[in-house]
Amino acid sequence: MDMLRTGVSILGMTDPEAGDNSPDANTRKSIRLVAQIPLLISAADRLASGIPLLRRQPDLSFAENLLHLLTGRKEDTRAKAMARVLDVSLTLYAEHEFNASTFSARVTASTMTDLHSAITSAIGTLKGPLHGGANEAVAQMFVEIGSPAKAERWVHESLASKRRIMGFGHRVLKHGDARSAIIQRHAADLSRICGDHRWYEIAAVVEQVMREEKGLYPNLDFYTAVAYLLMTIPRTLYTPVFVCSRITGWCAHVIEQQSHNRLMRPRALYTGPSKKEYVPIDRRT
Amino acid sequence: MDMLRTGVSILGMTDPEAGDNSPDANTRKSIRLVAQIPLLISAADRLASGIPLLRRQPDLSFAENLLHLLTGRKEDTRAKAMARVLDVSLTLYAEHEFNASTFSARVTASTMTDLHSAITSAIGTLKGPLHGGANEAVAQMFVEIGSPAKAERWVHESLASKRRIMGFGHRVLKHGDARSAIIQRHAADLSRICGDHRWYEIAAVVEQVMREEKGLYPNLDFYTAVAYLLMTIPRTLYTPVFVCSRITGWCAHVIEQQSHNRLMRPRALYTGPSKKEYVPIDRRT
Repeated sequence: MDMLRTGVSILGMTDPEAGDNSPDANTRKSIRLVAQIPLLISAADRLASGIPLLRRQPDLSFAENLLHLLTGRKEDTRAKAMARVLDVSLTLYAEHEFNASTFSARVTASTMTDLHSAITSAIGTLKGPLHGGANEAVAQMFVEIGSPAKAERWVHESLASKRRIMGFGHRVLKHGDARSAIIQRHAADLSRICGDHRWYEIAAVVEQVMREEKGLYPNLDFYTAVAYLLMTIPRTLYTPVFVCSRITGWCAHVIEQQSHNRLMRPRALYTGPSKKEYVPIDRRT
Repeated sequence: MDMLRTGVSILGMTDPEAGDNSPDANTRKSIRLVAQIPLLISAADRLASGIPLLRRQPDLSFAENLLHLLTGRKEDTRAKAMARVLDVSLTLYAEHEFNASTFSARVTASTMTDLHSAITSAIGTLKGPLHGGANEAVAQMFVEIGSPAKAERWVHESLASKRRIMGFGHRVLKHGDARSAIIQRHAADLSRICGDHRWYEIAAVVEQVMREEKGLYPNLDFYTAVAYLLMTIPRTLYTPVFVCSRITGWCAHVIEQQSHNRLMRPRALYTGPSKKEYVPIDRRT
């Protein structure tokens, strides 16, 4: 995420239309970012691992390209099926109103700064553990559980020890996440195609126990983790993959904000002490 | 500002305590940023101009160092006087509650992301013309006016042609800016010490006409421009110099936000059409 934040900030300086903040230029900048971000993620990951860089494949779709850049997969039947599910996942993650990263992009954009500044803000905001990283944490949990036979006991023990189970509930969606059923169906299909039902079955048990014990339903991140595990996307890249999708929502919000702009400059209400004695700096303890 | 945004983003990756987001580590990161930002600004400006880089001067104060890095000045009596006024200006600019850049730093910090992400957001937000650049625009105006004798007529003509006069009024400070009188006094002193009264006299005429014609009072940016012109700080660096000051306020806000955190995730109220027909992409016009 640091590489991506820095990379997008640099791209703001090298963009062929840097300095042109018109809606038309911003639409073109957005399309370029959609293309550039998967390459940035792949290059950063591969440079860090010391393995050869991959090139974009102009004959592949966006999702097929992304799958290739993340995993090296291409062409075979499984890769086609995986890319289809990845495409669905990207569509489901594309936009979700005023989440914190989108809101920070809008606050930044409200000074009529450039699009890349606003997207840089969004990426730095998404990096925080209260926003990004949920599907990565779900996948980590499935790996820790290890097999469907161990899942029921794992959840009961976790609940007993007040451990938080990831992938359930949502700050805004209090009555279930409509996106979950869609990715769940695709995760089931992909499990069949890959002949690997382990992750899906672990997930199904965790879901059932959580419904019975806590009345909670899975959110989008939950079965997405099953799909990404099947695709063998490196877990540390799940949040960067989210950026490959949400970049579309962020850019649309920035363009919308600037087309009906009002500077976001809230007032603060001071609630501290009303008067304190001034203490010269060399007498402070 | 692009270089500064990118530079701080990179410093987030190389900071010796990257990964430690505790309040103590964030205080140390903040102090490092206060030291690093003047060097970043100076290096970016000098690299762009192809002139030799300057080093920090450990025997000088923060403001003396900054003046040296921005202008090459050092040691002589004038430089001492200039650094004193620069110090006052940095103090006056250090904090101003929930302006847009501070607010974006707080929104970013509210996901419990790292300090450098929040500061990167703030810099990208400040870059926008509705936030940064006011004192630069004031200086530009003084240069355009050129001499005190031309000032009165220039303001009357500008008002008649509905041209906006920079450095007056404030989104929040509706009844005058208490900081203005302080920097005005120092700008007057510095004009005497430098034996150059041109900028101060132009400013005084513009201020008087605006008070008489529009009932408006100058804000902090107005006489700051006089002081910075006397210091011969390159005009394109006025907003980066603001960062050298406001970095303290931003960092304090980030640390405060994270010590009593609540995720900033507002709701959006959809006011668009209630239902639209789905049009397949190849049939859209």
